[in-house]
Order: sequence, then C-alpha cells, then structure tokens
Amino acid sequence: MITLESLGASAGHEFPRAVDIREVGPRDGLQLEQPVTLQQKIEFIDALARTGVKRIEVTSFVSPSAVPALADAPELARELRRWPDIEFCALVAGYGGAKRALAAGVNHLQYVISASEGHARANAGKSVQESVEAGKAIIELVHAAGGICEVIIATAFDCPFDGPTPPEAVAGITAELVGAGADRLTLADTIGTATPDRVLALVQTVRPLCPEAAVGLHLHNTRDTAMANVLAALLVGVTDFDAAVGGLGGCPFAPGASGNLATEDLVNFLEDIGVSTGLDLEELAAAGSLVSGFLGRSLNSALSKCAPRIGFTYASIPTAV
Amino acid sequence: MITLESLGASAGHEFPRAVDIREVGPRDGLQLEQPVTLQQKIEFIDALARTGVKRIEVTSFVSPSAVPALADAPELARELRRWPDIEFCALVAGYGGAKRALAAGVNHLQYVISASEGHARANAGKSVQESVEAGKAIIELVHAAGGICEVIIATAFDCPFDGPTPPEAVAGITAELVGAGADRLTLADTIGTATPDRVLALVQTVRPLCPEAAVGLHLHNTRDTAMANVLAALLVGVTDFDAAVGGLGGCPFAPGASGNLATEDLVNFLEDIGVSTGLDLEELAAAGSLVSGFLGRSLNSALSKCAPRIGFTYASIPTAV
Repeated sequence: MITLESLGASAGHEFPRAVDIREVGPRDGLQLEQPVTLQQKIEFIDALARTGVKRIEVTSFVSPSAVPALADAPELARELRRWPDIEFCALVAGYGGAKRALAAGVNHLQYVISASEGHARANAGKSVQESVEAGKAIIELVHAAGGICEVIIATAFDCPFDGPTPPEAVAGITAELVGAGADRLTLADTIGTATPDRVLALVQTVRPLCPEAAVGLHLHNTRDTAMANVLAALLVGVTDFDAAVGGLGGCPFAPGASGNLATEDLVNFLEDIGVSTGLDLEELAAAGSLVSGFLGRSLNSALSKCAPRIGFTYASIPTAV
Repeated sequence: MITLESLGASAGHEFPRAVDIREVGPRDGLQLEQPVTLQQKIEFIDALARTGVKRIEVTSFVSPSAVPALADAPELARELRRWPDIEFCALVAGYGGAKRALAAGVNHLQYVISASEGHARANAGKSVQESVEAGKAIIELVHAAGGICEVIIATAFDCPFDGPTPPEAVAGITAELVGAGADRLTLADTIGTATPDRVLALVQTVRPLCPEAAVGLHLHNTRDTAMANVLAALLVGVTDFDAAVGGLGGCPFAPGASGNLATEDLVNFLEDIGVSTGLDLEELAAAGSLVSGFLGRSLNSALSKCAPRIGFTYASIPTAV
C-alpha cells in the first residue's frame, strides 16, 4: 500500500509527525487592510493565544507611511509581555527598522529580502546585493543584542516585476545570510504562483546551505495551489509553515483573491492526515470570527464556510452527488 | 534532485504527462442552483466547447421534482448534436432514468451509486445492495442499446449520514459493477473531506479490480484540499479528473462553501507542472463569466479573482511580502 509516509521515505525524507505553524495574521494578514485599533489587535492576539499557536509574526517595523495599518508597532510591542508563552517576531526590511524594533523591546526579528531586483527595488528601495549587505548588518545587530534573526526570502518563486526567480538567486542569498548567522530561513511564495515541483526543487537547493537553520515555507493560496505545495513540502520533510487565520492578506493587484494559506484550513488538512499541529480548530474559528468582525468582511478560508472534517457532525440533511 | 516524476516513479507509477478532464459544470455545477434556461445552457455548452474540453457531464435524468434545475434534460439532449466533437454523458440514479435517457437519445450514461447506506437511502431511496443490482441492470440495458455506462461511487470517502466509508464497501461495489461491465469508474468525494492519504489508499484498493476500466476522481474543494488530492492522485498515475468551471456546485449544508474543484484552477495547476490538459484558460474564464452572469453571483474559483500563472503579465505594481 502506498502511503504519504512511503512516498516521503522513497524521497529519502522522513514524513513529519508534527509541524510548527507560525501565525502571520497580525502582520501579513492585516498589513494591507484598513487599520484596526491597538485594542483590537490585543483582542486578536488574545484569541490566537487560545488556539495553542506557539509562534506569531505580530507586526513589522517598516515605514509607517508605506504600511499605516502597522504603524502602531512600538505600542503593540509593549503589550507582548501579556503572552509569555508565545514566541513573537516582527518583520523588518532594513537596518533602521531593526534598530527601532530592538529599541521597542522586540528582539526576535525576521528580515525580509527579495530575491528579485524588481521586487527589491519596489519593496525596500535597494538592490538585491544591497539588501544582502543590509541583512548581514541586521543579523549582527540583532545577535549583538542577544536576539534572534530569521530571514524570509520574498519572491522566492516568481516576481511580479521580473517573472520567474532563478533558484540560483535564492541559493545565493541563502548562502550569504545563513553564512552570516541567520537563525531560520523561510521561502516566500509572495504572489501565490509556486507549484509542487518548484517547491521540491527549491527546498532541495537551499537545504544543503542551511546545515543548522530550519527551512520553512510562506505560502499564499491565490491560485488554490497552497495545499498541494504543503503536501509536496511534507514529502521532503519540511515542518515549518506560515499561515494566517481566515486566509487574511493578499495582493494589491489581485482584488478579492485569496491571501495567505488559511491557518484553519492547514490545521484541518494536517491533523486529518495524522500530522500534529497543536492548534485547536474551534479556537481558530473564534479568532477568525473576531477579526472578521473587526474588518467588516467575510474571510477567505474554506473552514469559515463549512465544518472541519475533524470532529465533523454527520447530519441528516439530503445531499446530491 | 527530487521531482514529482521521481516521487511517482518511487511509488511505482508513471507520473502523467497529460490528463483527461471531464467538465461537470452543467450537471453537478447547476443542479443545486436556481434553474437557468435551456437557451442559457446551450450558450454555456457553446462556451465550454470553445475551451477544448472533450468530455462533459451535461445533465441528469433523475426526478424533476428532486432536481428541478435539470428537469429539461430531454430537451437539452436534443440539442447535443450541435457539438459532434464532444463526448457527452448524463447522470442517472436508477433504471427508470436510464430508460428515459436512452429514449432521449443519450446513450452515454453515468450511474451514480452511494457507497454508504445513509446516502444511498437519502439520494436514491434504495439500499446499497439494491443500488448494486440496479446498476447491473442499467449496465446491461445501456450496453444492449450500444451505449457506454460509467459508474460514479458517491460518498466514497465519507458519508454525511454514516461517517467514514470503509474502503471495503467501495471495493465491493467496484468489483460487482466493473465485473458487470462498467466502462469507467469514478470515486467521488461528495462532501469534500477526502485527504491525500485516503486518495492514495482508495485508488490502490480499487485499481486492481478495474483491469480495463479507468479509475478517475470527482473532487470537491469544500475544505481547500482538492488540489492536494489531485497531486496525490497524480503521484500514483491517475489521469481522469472531474471539475466544474468556476467551482460551481456545492453542498446544501455548507452554504457559501466551495463546490467542485474549479476547472480553471485545475488547468492552471496542471499545465504549470507540465501536465497537459488540452484546455484553454482564456476560454475557461469566458465560460465562467458567462455562467456567473446567468447565476447572478461571483464564482468560487481562485482564477476568477486573479491572473493565471501561465501567461501571467508581470506588472509594475508595488507589493508587500
């Protein structure tokens, strides 16, 4: 009998028994939305804390004019001691932001770097090589402060300006920044165009360059391919995944399109195939409802519109095929 | 380098270079919607014909009171000669419907049988064993008329009344109806709860019972798992998939939930990983827009809200990670 485990074993990798999900709803999910208040963010994080999630990307220290929805990052940072059991991280795109984050008391940072020139210029106003140098300086700064510095590589698969990203570009950035001490690497499918074959190939390309740093995935579900990409990643033993409650987030040039892979859909899927997440589906639904109310719109997740299979209550209602 | 092909090869199966998609929008997609007119159905099929699709499940011959949206099946059947290059089939749930279909000139039928008692009773008013006997009689009837009779097994993974369906139940039905001459077998994830491990297991269970009949999948995307299930099926060489333009269809007890796997999302995914479908994404978008207008609602497909990756025009619009 062929099983997922045997396919993973065929590929020379252990199929995961458990994964580590990082909730990115408060940052990637909310950054393009109409701003919600600090108090609402606190309520949202409170709700997320009840889900059992252990890692949350909570805000970013970037230009407040570029991302006004997250302009309250320093104020939010002061509240994070409310949840001592959660590992919070904040996104930074440059050295100034890293200094502001550290000054605000956030010493677990995630440096975002674009693998493509077009996106690097648009998102950070720097070339890729300048971004690499900035990343090295940020890693040194954070480590000197006793903090943790992860790296997320945006446009790791495709760039909205430059088209397909050569895997060699991602490998080059990985080698430089993991070599400089990055504590974790995340490959981001920024515009939701990754496919399972390219996920397999890119993970295989960068993993040998990361002997000690975990390699994770940040997937968007814009084209309904995220869960297939998760499956491919599981087959080669990836255990780190970003996701956002309700499928929050998205892309400014794809109005109405799905955003991040939805946390509750990912949890339902993984738990159903025997991969433990530690997250509670009912509490995820409650967190999603809360933020849906704040935003005044329905969510993009599948499970916001139907019951999960886990704990499904089979009901006597007629169906058609 | 690990590739999808190598994973499939590890599993002892050839990874498909091409697949055969059956469009089920006119039947499964429209059956629970407010009825559209015969003329609109003709326009919809015209639009589908332009996509390059070679197989369409076009209507059903069931109780008009149970499925009023498809009550015009005999009238629609008279129009099918307009598209001589398309292989049309119609769904039937019993012997009377099969006779009516043949009388209407449709000699390519798909008999739906539920693998679970609860669904068999609710959907067809018969036990599973009575449904098997009816299926044998229908296969004989259709073959005697020179026609083709496929079988679709509903609730092949889970039943909304009975819970998980034992694979042995599906295997038993398969053995009886393929033994009776069924020309093709489709496993239906009626309520969208299948997972890749169970897809692999069920395909492996029934395939040895179908030495000459193809085994296909009819997947719903209710819980955002359909594409992962497609990937799992590809890894063991499945090449027959049902899909509905726009993700039409759904489940009466999951309001707003996604329906069938969307044809355009499936085509975008498959073509992007090098699996040929023969279908045109622009024409699929046109067909989707047409039916969206008829129904007066937006579609559930991801590609109805964003550009496909294939032919993606990279534009100079700022993005965030």
